[in-house]
Amino acid sequence: FQTYRGLRRLVLPLLAASKFWFVIVVTGVGVGVVGAFLDILVAWLGDLRVGRCTYGFFYSQSQCCKGYDAGEICLEWKAWSQWFNVPSLGLQSLLQSFIYVFLAVAFASVAAYFVKMHAPYAFHTGIPEIKAILGGYVLDSFLGPWTLLIKAVGLALAVASGLSLGKEGPLVHIACCMAFVASRFFKAFRENEAEKRRILAAAATAGVSVAFGSPLGGVIFGIEELDTYHEDVAWRAFVTSVIAAVTLQYMDPFGTSKLVLFGVTASSEPWKAFELIPWLFLGVMGGLLGALLIRMNVAMAVYRRNGPLYEWPLLEVIGVTAVTAAVSYLVVFLRVPTAELVANLFLECDASKGDYHGLCNLDAISETVFLLLLTAALKIVFTIVTFGMMIPAGIFLPTIAIGACLGRAVGLIVQGIHRAHPGAWLFSACPPDPTVRCISPGFYSVIGATAMLGGVTRMTVSLVVIMFELTGALSHVLPIMIAVMSSKWVADAFGKEGIYASWIAMR
Amino acid sequence: FQTYRGLRRLVLPLLAASKFWFVIVVTGVGVGVVGAFLDILVAWLGDLRVGRCTYGFFYSQSQCCKGYDAGEICLEWKAWSQWFNVPSLGLQSLLQSFIYVFLAVAFASVAAYFVKMHAPYAFHTGIPEIKAILGGYVLDSFLGPWTLLIKAVGLALAVASGLSLGKEGPLVHIACCMAFVASRFFKAFRENEAEKRRILAAAATAGVSVAFGSPLGGVIFGIEELDTYHEDVAWRAFVTSVIAAVTLQYMDPFGTSKLVLFGVTASSEPWKAFELIPWLFLGVMGGLLGALLIRMNVAMAVYRRNGPLYEWPLLEVIGVTAVTAAVSYLVVFLRVPTAELVANLFLECDASKGDYHGLCNLDAISETVFLLLLTAALKIVFTIVTFGMMIPAGIFLPTIAIGACLGRAVGLIVQGIHRAHPGAWLFSACPPDPTVRCISPGFYSVIGATAMLGGVTRMTVSLVVIMFELTGALSHVLPIMIAVMSSKWVADAFGKEGIYASWIAMR
Repeated sequence: FQTYRGLRRLVLPLLAASKFWFVIVVTGVGVGVVGAFLDILVAWLGDLRVGRCTYGFFYSQSQCCKGYDAGEICLEWKAWSQWFNVPSLGLQSLLQSFIYVFLAVAFASVAAYFVKMHAPYAFHTGIPEIKAILGGYVLDSFLGPWTLLIKAVGLALAVASGLSLGKEGPLVHIACCMAFVASRFFKAFRENEAEKRRILAAAATAGVSVAFGSPLGGVIFGIEELDTYHEDVAWRAFVTSVIAAVTLQYMDPFGTSKLVLFGVTASSEPWKAFELIPWLFLGVMGGLLGALLIRMNVAMAVYRRNGPLYEWPLLEVIGVTAVTAAVSYLVVFLRVPTAELVANLFLECDASKGDYHGLCNLDAISETVFLLLLTAALKIVFTIVTFGMMIPAGIFLPTIAIGACLGRAVGLIVQGIHRAHPGAWLFSACPPDPTVRCISPGFYSVIGATAMLGGVTRMTVSLVVIMFELTGALSHVLPIMIAVMSSKWVADAFGKEGIYASWIAMR
Repeated sequence: FQTYRGLRRLVLPLLAASKFWFVIVVTGVGVGVVGAFLDILVAWLGDLRVGRCTYGFFYSQSQCCKGYDAGEICLEWKAWSQWFNVPSLGLQSLLQSFIYVFLAVAFASVAAYFVKMHAPYAFHTGIPEIKAILGGYVLDSFLGPWTLLIKAVGLALAVASGLSLGKEGPLVHIACCMAFVASRFFKAFRENEAEKRRILAAAATAGVSVAFGSPLGGVIFGIEELDTYHEDVAWRAFVTSVIAAVTLQYMDPFGTSKLVLFGVTASSEPWKAFELIPWLFLGVMGGLLGALLIRMNVAMAVYRRNGPLYEWPLLEVIGVTAVTAAVSYLVVFLRVPTAELVANLFLECDASKGDYHGLCNLDAISETVFLLLLTAALKIVFTIVTFGMMIPAGIFLPTIAIGACLGRAVGLIVQGIHRAHPGAWLFSACPPDPTVRCISPGFYSVIGATAMLGGVTRMTVSLVVIMFELTGALSHVLPIMIAVMSSKWVADAFGKEGIYASWIAMR
């Protein structure tokens, strides 16, 4: 009898839970696959603004030039002016810039058209609404199959258009849509709001997991930001999150078979005490700029609602995209894809690896610093305007990019001071030879990005964990935490709410 | 005015929080320091049962033989029989075993005496009581300075005595004592139960962080096991946890400057589908044995309360220690320190690194398997008896050791089958040459330990994260999760409660 009871206790919950697990596994695998396809699609569309692969139209530049090392010239990839054999230099750059702006506007307006016509809920990041739904608000049309499809396609187009937006938040929305659609097949979920919310929480976790390659960060994001803690929920969310991450790794969209998206250069040397000063400065700046960005973005949303273009959201998207693309074409750090920029800002200079658009050119430090600060300033302006337009748009990546530019600039300045005055007492912890690297500007960039994200989102534990898993910088956890802490303190003083809470309040 | 309000909002919470942060930092640093000292003390006392360093009494074997590679003979370290120049072989082993058992009994009885006389709350793991306190139960004497001191010293003696117990749970209790003592200096904490509990939650997190070298695992353990989720609490707990881990790393008790305690051999090759069968088997075994261990341990506790030795807890400790030490002296895997055993069970065989007590001897696989199973069985019996005696005792490490032995045995069996039948269809995913490693018994050991821990503690997310951070085995997250899941399912069928909940229920 004892054994029988034991066996029944063993099997019955298994059967009862199987529906749940079916939905979980489908969602996890689905999110991983969609995330990987989005990456491939965005890379191809984004590169299409510049040129094409000679042996196949549907290859992105990195796929086309596989096998070449960074720095080598890849003959298979041709810029449009080369492809069309344009003779004069003036005509070449005219054609290049025209195609760049034209395709950007085309991508963005197609995305906006789809959103406006077929799925108005697919605009924006979606995280504020998901917070509301998980909090008990019922809004099923927000999670329908049309929203899913158009948000996914629109997101790829919007990111490829070079607008100042990221894919992270929308991926969470997409994950929730997938879970919702998958759960509709079971009566148990159609009729039970609590069960539905549990599934959505797990799906949101998987979305973060895929967006940042960060399964643990996803779970903690779920607990911290979405307020959904319950033992079972956390475990199921964790399973979904890992399934999604493993699927993404298996699909391997970047051909690196790594989950760490923006790997930093591993450093064995400890950081020095005097570096706390620039890091605290970055924390404070992140808090101030984060609070400013939220305020201006909310003001912009209010202005939009009463402004002349309220009835013409497509026109707004076209105008903003044209301006963004034209300006971006002129500033090299804005022209490249944002994810690529961030990845390179996080890396330390390495003479054997080649330079990234002058980032490591020691003869032009002040020019580089100016360029970085200009990029950050323009990205702030673009992000304020873009986040809230009729287009799928996440705020994570632009925020990371702004912070990374600031951090790199501060790092370069500190490095420059060290090189100019290697004997100063402040730098006594550094090796006496100034050509040996003592300050790591790439890590300053990570600190800057963390501080900026802290100011904008007001996340704490989950932010640190995501930055961990995003960069693999496990050795520098204390500075990262200090940046999060100082930035949150400063930002909280100028406005209690993070960007998501502000948007919830605005609705 | 705006700026003024901003500044005030910036500074006031800082001042209000400073007391809290003072206690947090003191606790974090304190736990890290105590954890490091415990490690050093345990290593020295444990080695003292075997011999001494020729050039200094207070060196442990590894400190004494620093600079020697594993496998080299270290002349500075002398076993007692060498030290006293005992001539005949028979007398030598008699002296060695006598000193081994005598010192073990001496250590354990001193620990038990202190606990019985001065701090009865210092016995056992302490985690059930901390769960109760965090749940609202007021039990201040459980956290006093005497308990702190005696639990720390007693823990070192108990671990060094070779009894089947670990330091993990008691470290959490020690951390809570430290936080409680530190918080007594502030009126704000003396008079506010809620604030006190918040501090204790952070301290418990730091305890787990130091016990496993696992700062993230600590935070999630706090959320999952101690039911203390609140945004601020999680953040403060995280800070404490990281400070404690950084302090431990800075103190560097093992001279490896690593936080990963039981590092596994990094493996780039993926696991094969057929391995799911032995892993599921390990999961089921972990669940069954875990449930059995809990039941027998509870039965033992009930028997103890009504048994003849209830009035003589010291006699019980002496008797159990004598039997444990005598038996352990005969079985080589029991004689070595448990942490060392687990570390070696988790490692893959490497011909260049030397063998660990025959673990990698390919000519004696069946003997090794028998020895491993015997070790596991004896450890289960010892743990059932030991956990609950009048002595500080954690259940984590013995559980890990039991599971690791089982897992290694299963891994060796699978490896043996593969070597005997390399052409079988089951092994078609393996390389054709049977001398190339296809099955990794060290990783089976990790799976076994995870499954056993799952069965005994019923932890889920925090267990996976702790196993991550304990082993660094990030690439094998799915098998680890499958082991946790299957073991929890099976164990739940034979008793709904984990070991801590069972002890809470028993009080």
